[in-house]
Amino acid sequence: MKKFLLLNGPNLNLLGKREPGIYGAETLQHLEERLVKLAASHGEELTCFQSNHEGELIDRLHETMEAGINGVIFNPGAFTHYSYALRDAIAGIDCPVIEVHISNIHSREPFRHISVTAPVTAGQVIGLGFKGYELAFEALREIVKEREI
Amino acid sequence: MKKFLLLNGPNLNLLGKREPGIYGAETLQHLEERLVKLAASHGEELTCFQSNHEGELIDRLHETMEAGINGVIFNPGAFTHYSYALRDAIAGIDCPVIEVHISNIHSREPFRHISVTAPVTAGQVIGLGFKGYELAFEALREIVKEREI
Amino acid sequence: MKKFLLLNGPNLNLLGKREPGIYGAETLQHLEERLVKLAASHGEELTCFQSNHEGELIDRLHETMEAGINGVIFNPGAFTHYSYALRDAIAGIDCPVIEVHISNIHSREPFRHISVTAPVTAGQVIGLGFKGYELAFEALREIVKEREI
Amino acid sequence: MKKFLLLNGPNLNLLGKREPGIYGAETLQHLEERLVKLAASHGEELTCFQSNHEGELIDRLHETMEAGINGVIFNPGAFTHYSYALRDAIAGIDCPVIEVHISNIHSREPFRHISVTAPVTAGQVIGLGFKGYELAFEALREIVKEREI
Amino acid sequence: MKKFLLLNGPNLNLLGKREPGIYGAETLQHLEERLVKLAASHGEELTCFQSNHEGELIDRLHETMEAGINGVIFNPGAFTHYSYALRDAIAGIDCPVIEVHISNIHSREPFRHISVTAPVTAGQVIGLGFKGYELAFEALREIVKEREI
Amino acid sequence: MKKFLLLNGPNLNLLGKREPGIYGAETLQHLEERLVKLAASHGEELTCFQSNHEGELIDRLHETMEAGINGVIFNPGAFTHYSYALRDAIAGIDCPVIEVHISNIHSREPFRHISVTAPVTAGQVIGLGFKGYELAFEALREIVKEREI
Amino acid sequence: MKKFLLLNGPNLNLLGKREPGIYGAETLQHLEERLVKLAASHGEELTCFQSNHEGELIDRLHETMEAGINGVIFNPGAFTHYSYALRDAIAGIDCPVIEVHISNIHSREPFRHISVTAPVTAGQVIGLGFKGYELAFEALREIVKEREI
Amino acid sequence: MKKFLLLNGPNLNLLGKREPGIYGAETLQHLEERLVKLAASHGEELTCFQSNHEGELIDRLHETMEAGINGVIFNPGAFTHYSYALRDAIAGIDCPVIEVHISNIHSREPFRHISVTAPVTAGQVIGLGFKGYELAFEALREIVKEREI
Amino acid sequence: MKKFLLLNGPNLNLLGKREPGIYGAETLQHLEERLVKLAASHGEELTCFQSNHEGELIDRLHETMEAGINGVIFNPGAFTHYSYALRDAIAGIDCPVIEVHISNIHSREPFRHISVTAPVTAGQVIGLGFKGYELAFEALREIVKEREI
Amino acid sequence: MKKFLLLNGPNLNLLGKREPGIYGAETLQHLEERLVKLAASHGEELTCFQSNHEGELIDRLHETMEAGINGVIFNPGAFTHYSYALRDAIAGIDCPVIEVHISNIHSREPFRHISVTAPVTAGQVIGLGFKGYELAFEALREIVKEREI
Amino acid sequence: MKKFLLLNGPNLNLLGKREPGIYGAETLQHLEERLVKLAASHGEELTCFQSNHEGELIDRLHETMEAGINGVIFNPGAFTHYSYALRDAIAGIDCPVIEVHISNIHSREPFRHISVTAPVTAGQVIGLGFKGYELAFEALREIVKEREI
Amino acid sequence: MKKFLLLNGPNLNLLGKREPGIYGAETLQHLEERLVKLAASHGEELTCFQSNHEGELIDRLHETMEAGINGVIFNPGAFTHYSYALRDAIAGIDCPVIEVHISNIHSREPFRHISVTAPVTAGQVIGLGFKGYELAFEALREIVKEREI
Repeated sequence: MKKFLLLNGPNLNLLGKREPGIYGAETLQHLEERLVKLAASHGEELTCFQSNHEGELIDRLHETMEAGINGVIFNPGAFTHYSYALRDAIAGIDCPVIEVHISNIHSREPFRHISVTAPVTAGQVIGLGFKGYELAFEALREIVKEREI
Repeated sequence: MKKFLLLNGPNLNLLGKREPGIYGAETLQHLEERLVKLAASHGEELTCFQSNHEGELIDRLHETMEAGINGVIFNPGAFTHYSYALRDAIAGIDCPVIEVHISNIHSREPFRHISVTAPVTAGQVIGLGFKGYELAFEALREIVKEREI
Repeated sequence: MKKFLLLNGPNLNLLGKREPGIYGAETLQHLEERLVKLAASHGEELTCFQSNHEGELIDRLHETMEAGINGVIFNPGAFTHYSYALRDAIAGIDCPVIEVHISNIHSREPFRHISVTAPVTAGQVIGLGFKGYELAFEALREIVKEREI
Repeated sequence: MKKFLLLNGPNLNLLGKREPGIYGAETLQHLEERLVKLAASHGEELTCFQSNHEGELIDRLHETMEAGINGVIFNPGAFTHYSYALRDAIAGIDCPVIEVHISNIHSREPFRHISVTAPVTAGQVIGLGFKGYELAFEALREIVKEREI
Repeated sequence: MKKFLLLNGPNLNLLGKREPGIYGAETLQHLEERLVKLAASHGEELTCFQSNHEGELIDRLHETMEAGINGVIFNPGAFTHYSYALRDAIAGIDCPVIEVHISNIHSREPFRHISVTAPVTAGQVIGLGFKGYELAFEALREIVKEREI
Repeated sequence: MKKFLLLNGPNLNLLGKREPGIYGAETLQHLEERLVKLAASHGEELTCFQSNHEGELIDRLHETMEAGINGVIFNPGAFTHYSYALRDAIAGIDCPVIEVHISNIHSREPFRHISVTAPVTAGQVIGLGFKGYELAFEALREIVKEREI
Repeated sequence: MKKFLLLNGPNLNLLGKREPGIYGAETLQHLEERLVKLAASHGEELTCFQSNHEGELIDRLHETMEAGINGVIFNPGAFTHYSYALRDAIAGIDCPVIEVHISNIHSREPFRHISVTAPVTAGQVIGLGFKGYELAFEALREIVKEREI
Repeated sequence: MKKFLLLNGPNLNLLGKREPGIYGAETLQHLEERLVKLAASHGEELTCFQSNHEGELIDRLHETMEAGINGVIFNPGAFTHYSYALRDAIAGIDCPVIEVHISNIHSREPFRHISVTAPVTAGQVIGLGFKGYELAFEALREIVKEREI
Repeated sequence: MKKFLLLNGPNLNLLGKREPGIYGAETLQHLEERLVKLAASHGEELTCFQSNHEGELIDRLHETMEAGINGVIFNPGAFTHYSYALRDAIAGIDCPVIEVHISNIHSREPFRHISVTAPVTAGQVIGLGFKGYELAFEALREIVKEREI
Repeated sequence: MKKFLLLNGPNLNLLGKREPGIYGAETLQHLEERLVKLAASHGEELTCFQSNHEGELIDRLHETMEAGINGVIFNPGAFTHYSYALRDAIAGIDCPVIEVHISNIHSREPFRHISVTAPVTAGQVIGLGFKGYELAFEALREIVKEREI
Repeated sequence: MKKFLLLNGPNLNLLGKREPGIYGAETLQHLEERLVKLAASHGEELTCFQSNHEGELIDRLHETMEAGINGVIFNPGAFTHYSYALRDAIAGIDCPVIEVHISNIHSREPFRHISVTAPVTAGQVIGLGFKGYELAFEALREIVKEREI
Repeated sequence: MKKFLLLNGPNLNLLGKREPGIYGAETLQHLEERLVKLAASHGEELTCFQSNHEGELIDRLHETMEAGINGVIFNPGAFTHYSYALRDAIAGIDCPVIEVHISNIHSREPFRHISVTAPVTAGQVIGLGFKGYELAFEALREIVKEREI
């Protein structure tokens, strides 16, 4: 059985409460349940973690190595745009990471157009809402499968 | 029955021949067949078009309006980084466009880190190979469905 | 009898259909008819051409030399912001070219604030809608007259 | 009867005396007479004002509100490139302003390529000599007419 | 009874100990007592919190929503200059936030001239020492009052 | 009896008339009366001056030295963003100057994010409307008192 | 027998007609004949192609692979400065490409100082007129010979 | 008899009062007397003018043409760094202008390192105190003499 | 007996596990033991602390004041490149801090070439592996000794 | 008999020893012999000089005027990227200079993409190895011949 | 008796030979004789030195300390724009240095607008031809005299 | 017996004489003696060389290859910030080079924050005074030892 991690960064606990025009009306709990269910439908396990603390997100990425996590879906929130420490954490672990953004960051403020984490991820899914997480999960499963070969 | 367009930009006709380390060993024909098949499995029609001519891609985007196309999956290739004319074409038509890149453009040359088309697309799927096109198609179908409501 | 060329660049075939808040509700056909009529009222001939292909616009500019065109009114659309090839074409032909933009490009996205063609044109008329084309035509006629002296 | 204002900024009192290769041989008086005559031919009134003082130009723009001026033709001279105070004055008054430049500022020194006032004007006419003022006046009359509807 | 939060970011616990030439000789405790007393004099409650942890500051901002806080006075310290996560937290909550800086950040190192949080705050009070916090509190009370109307 | 100066720069005479969405509905006269009254309530004198002329503002700042002014509240309007001459005038006089902006300049156009005068002022109060002037006055009184010691 | 391609980009069809001060008085036909003759003198074949259409140049570069072309001499004209699509085409084909510019692009306008194609070519010959094409051909023959070893 | 103009820009009326560490202890009156005396010793006339108003400095430069002024010594103060209107005034008049700065502007704040007026002056004398004005006068006399030949 | 602190920032807990080509094969534990032993050989005490949490590193730096620490060896990891909060913490404490980087950050990605902490440290040792920490310790001891004099 | 100078700048004495992957295995002596022989085959004289000293290269360029040198082939090595003194020396002498680079400087580090000497040379040959020197010599001979006419 | 040094940098040995339109027709020998004579007329000694070698200029500046030189007139030629080593040499010696440029460097190429040496000199005299050296000498004598007091 | 080279660049001969606040009171001779003694204590030979001539430093670096030097300690002085020729020399030789700066270049002028040589050195020791050279020597010995294995 494969194990995956769904990691959400700062302010994503406000999903459904904050700026619904941008982020939609569903909550983080809805999102996590959708993803857990999707993983279960493939007979796989998905753990969820959200934090507003950069350090906790780094710790959690490190723990994937001992926890035998096969892949990570990661929405780093605003850390996307400046956390080189998270970038190094992603580069330092073994399993693939796919970066997800709910909104189209390229049609928002200029500072959101730059991702310092993207270069060390396997890929990005941007602007496709909660659906984007599901697609990232599908891609992640495929990447993990290919690595096994 | 919904109708979709798969649009590929310059040099993507070289898929499978050019820099396989970056773009993989499968050809454009393989890609198009995979997507047509996927659409058919949903009872939908997908037309494919590739061109090295910016003008032909613009023309084709314009034609979606009369052809009743419901959505476009578009890999603008190198035009991504400078074709404001393509950007205007995307902004000027009615149906949603999802931008796809086979490789992770953010871990390549700096000029590839900027997309002038992304701000007017519905979203982007980057670095996930041919699978990325399939995921973009899934997202596109959902967006089209939501718009109907 | 003087001969003039009205040249419109990419996406201007969408006039009246695309973003009417920015470009107005009249179509390209309306525009061309207005200008042809205006030229005729002066006993002059005006040919119209629109293309989404940079190469076709360059070809058409070159043809002015053999076709004995006395002046060009040119809205390069989005090519304004990056087509150095069009710039060289304008600089390479004999007759004067006036650049026209329907909307006020300086109150829109930053990339629209730079015109790479403007330095080699005779002048620019910006933000004055279809009327701007008519004014450009009046100016062009005067420039042509002055050159004859 | 409509009322218009012709506003000329710093150093334009030197017209005909200064750098005739760039600005032509006619004087400011010639220009003002041409415009007054043109307005009169439409049964309209045009007042003229020139100043080298940024503050006087701002004051004059403000006075348009009480003086019932319907539109302004404005050549801000070198203030074009740095006077955010003039920009705010244009944005703060009710009537439309069209920006005019006698020479093609885009083929001169780089500092002349940026206009800080353009974004808040109705449009610009550039590089078309004294004729450009007349064309701006025609456009202004049309804009004023449209606003009345 | 209205409730307010006084939030101080990294290194402000060193007040009175660190660089007194810049930050003065009074301690954080003095500051907090002054503000609590001022609030009490208006019959209002002010809670104080300081942290060197970006995540704790974000958490605390989020908690204002459940805690029924009416407004926040926030000195983000050095986070002012790079924490887009804090910016998003401020934008994501309901109550107004006023940004305060003890010293005149604009007469110090260049990196301190940019505030990434300022655009989403209600306003800023800069360079006015501890007095600046009191003024911010007065402004905050007024903004809260106006919102009730 | 202390003496203070309230200085307002270009276009602030339009207060209440210009862009009320940004600047509110009260006029400059209201503002000046509020401040004069506040000063009087402390037994102090406040003189008011507004000008659209950079030179007059500089002259007025210079005159504070002979007029025995103890402090200045200054909203330089758009001069904030380019008038190094005003900056030098502030630096060249003896009494403290506090910079005020009615709107939050950091959430408006990029050119408004830079203040060339801020580095030589005692502090800034930004985005807090007319209330901001009152707060600046309070701070100014305190600074003046401290200087006497 | 080796086969070579001489590729000329936009506006080079104007050679001899356009700006002779910069590009000389000989026409494109002269140039092509000189090169064909030079190739023939080595018992080699040289095909010539000029286009103002970026897409046609890309197509032609792609065709070298099936046409068994051994090397390309390419003057991309103004495309040099922005066509990342041409860059990708050069990088995507098998045979070496040498970039040629007739005039010294480094002593002309700043936009001509940057070549986006140069990094993926084998080398560049700049500013040496028609002679530069001949020298490029000599170098190309040598590179092809070395590759065979 | 030759006639010269000594022009001093904003804040130079504060000489001797403002920042003596930078500008010295002598007043503007001292400076003007020194220069008048120096001119007189050569049998020449020197008029002095200082203003904090950009417009008055421009007017004064224009008047040199009718007043038969042979040359100007000009310290534009802070206008040096942004007044393109003054630059145009200098370029628009007939007589030579030498730019003077009392302090070494290149060892002060970065904004003082750029002079927008320098390119159109005959030369600059920087950092040499009041002596610098005298040297500029000597150079000006020589330039005027050479022009007569 | 002198007391020192060895502080390691984010991802340095992965030493020996992460990118050994860059960081070597020894673990953080090895490093800490080497340094503790070196300190002991001088009869001095060295405490070790590593964290992925910026806030914990700031807290630990602050504690040096009460803990009577004489100097700090600090590898801020990726925080080096953006944590102005850490910079302020270093500047705010009494004892000297030497910055260490295991790899040569100047031959890696551009974002690693800038250190925002370096300006407030006593010095830096870069690219010399674990040995670099030992050398930093030697220098620190000397600086501490000199301060005592 | 014509006379030519082959000038090689810093580190080119290491040819064959340094980074053969970039510069090839042949030594400077080989290169010089090849060029001398080529010149001799045309009945011309070629002198060779290499130096790591910028001043000696300048001196040598100056000496061409008295030595009656007809043209120079110059590889300025790393001086290409910053030596404005060499640029001035090239511009100051009478005979044409062609710039040569062995490797394709445009596919190496960014600092190598800028040549400060190129604008004042007759042309450049880049990336074509030792062959590039020979081609430059051919071009130089032609330029010299044309000048004689 | 005071002793002075006249230092001229690279390419100034070409004076009178190189680009007379920019630098005039007199030679370096003329210049040196003029200055020596001027010094002699004051009973002072002036030594002259010119070199194209940055190192020799640095050495010469260092030697002023032992040679008892009281001041230096220095035209660093193109080194002005990049030689931080010369800047350090000027800053490292005791006597004042005045920087001279024959032509108006601010009306020439952009790279000539920046002087890296100016910030550590006493002042600059620019664009005033050979006369500028004489004026610099006058200023230098005054500075030296003032230092003695 | 190992052989090392201590290389010091421009102006370091002024050590002890120039700006002692920055560089300390000890002379270059002291420094060299300290290092020679340290090497001798390890039974190793250290040669010392200082020059203000970039070319001589390059020559000396080249000579390490024939002289059998095992490693170099190099303080390039101001050449650090622009000498790409020195960078290439370091990259072109076989033995490791450690870069040393006496003062903390990161807390001085901005131009000193960039080192063009650092990327090709083995490491850097910055801001640690003369002690820094000794530490660099220790590191160098270790690197040399490791290379032998």
